[in-house]
Amino acid sequence: MGGLAERQIAEAIEALTTRDSERAWRVINADATIDNLQHAIEERAVETIARRQPVAVDLRQVIGILRISNELERIGDLAKNIGKRIIAINGEDMPRRSLRGVSHMANLMLAQLRDVLDSFARRDAAKAVDVWTRDEDVDRLYTSLFRELIVYMMENPVTLSFGIHLLFCTKNLERMGDHATNIAETVYYMVNGQSLLRERPKADATSMLTGAMV
Amino acid sequence: MGGLAERQIAEAIEALTTRDSERAWRVINADATIDNLQHAIEERAVETIARRQPVAVDLRQVIGILRISNELERIGDLAKNIGKRIIAINGEDMPRRSLRGVSHMANLMLAQLRDVLDSFARRDAAKAVDVWTRDEDVDRLYTSLFRELIVYMMENPVTLSFGIHLLFCTKNLERMGDHATNIAETVYYMVNGQSLLRERPKADATSMLTGAMV
Repeated sequence: MGGLAERQIAEAIEALTTRDSERAWRVINADATIDNLQHAIEERAVETIARRQPVAVDLRQVIGILRISNELERIGDLAKNIGKRIIAINGEDMPRRSLRGVSHMANLMLAQLRDVLDSFARRDAAKAVDVWTRDEDVDRLYTSLFRELIVYMMENPVTLSFGIHLLFCTKNLERMGDHATNIAETVYYMVNGQSLLRERPKADATSMLTGAMV
Repeated sequence: MGGLAERQIAEAIEALTTRDSERAWRVINADATIDNLQHAIEERAVETIARRQPVAVDLRQVIGILRISNELERIGDLAKNIGKRIIAINGEDMPRRSLRGVSHMANLMLAQLRDVLDSFARRDAAKAVDVWTRDEDVDRLYTSLFRELIVYMMENPVTLSFGIHLLFCTKNLERMGDHATNIAETVYYMVNGQSLLRERPKADATSMLTGAMV
């Protein structure tokens, strides 16, 4: 399921930068597979709890897996949403520089997802904490892309509709990053039996950006 | 926790329409209470599974409660995000009409949340299905507000930064609606032991809006 989610993000960004709406449609249609996997994992987890009645560390594994599949399903939804936006903006004029920025942000996010899935496979809490901390980089990139896009739209009001779709695409990437950190928290919980409770460093300041600041 | 989430939304919208940044700060700060409640509920649920080893319908209740508290926590996050945006746009010029639209959408959403929490309290699957179906109305309102805001921004590029924050506020309301339908699905599962699998009607078409359509 993690592998599928990774592929969906990579495909969505490739479709965005190459303006390939056929590929975007494939991303949209493939999302059902991730949804079905999540349902199957959930049924299996509930069955396992009912039949085996796991306790302590085993129970934590099952609860952890339930949570992680939930996060991956949401990441899949966000990739699908990028797919839909690509189809909407097909043919419109694109600021190449911003697209490169989005692509860079997507690669950072993909590395985060890959690392957190690896930390899950190895039950490596230290690696999970590392991913959790690095989400700040994704947020920082998001904030700077957000500013850049707003400036671009102000100077070229005709690009407004396209620019807003692109803003939402970057917002989707930023939220995928949050889901990756949620997975990191879950891996930490699976290994250590307690929550990573201290407040995560937050560098996404876009909701605090005023007109004067952009 | 549901009551708190409802109050946070109502307060956030009141703060938005009255430009009350003190109230917005209160919404931002109160979110920690919801987060703490979710942690407490989760710990309690895992303890219950471990100690009582519930099966069948009892196990479904615990799993359901885990899921619902997760959804409510996310609704709280979205209300907090609206609070942050209010502080960012404080003092900027506002299109009164769009604000009324946002307020109307918020009321629709609040009614959905109230009804779904009621369906949970009464374990009323029919009422849950009703909420699930009505999410279409929230989505439809979101799509029309989205169009209106884009047109407004195109005509008044100086309002761009404010308008985009308002777009994200309406997007947050639309996502709260999705979380309410997730709760509805969970209530259905708690009562009937199976998923509401048919595809929910979707009227949020904004990700498909092209420049020509707005």
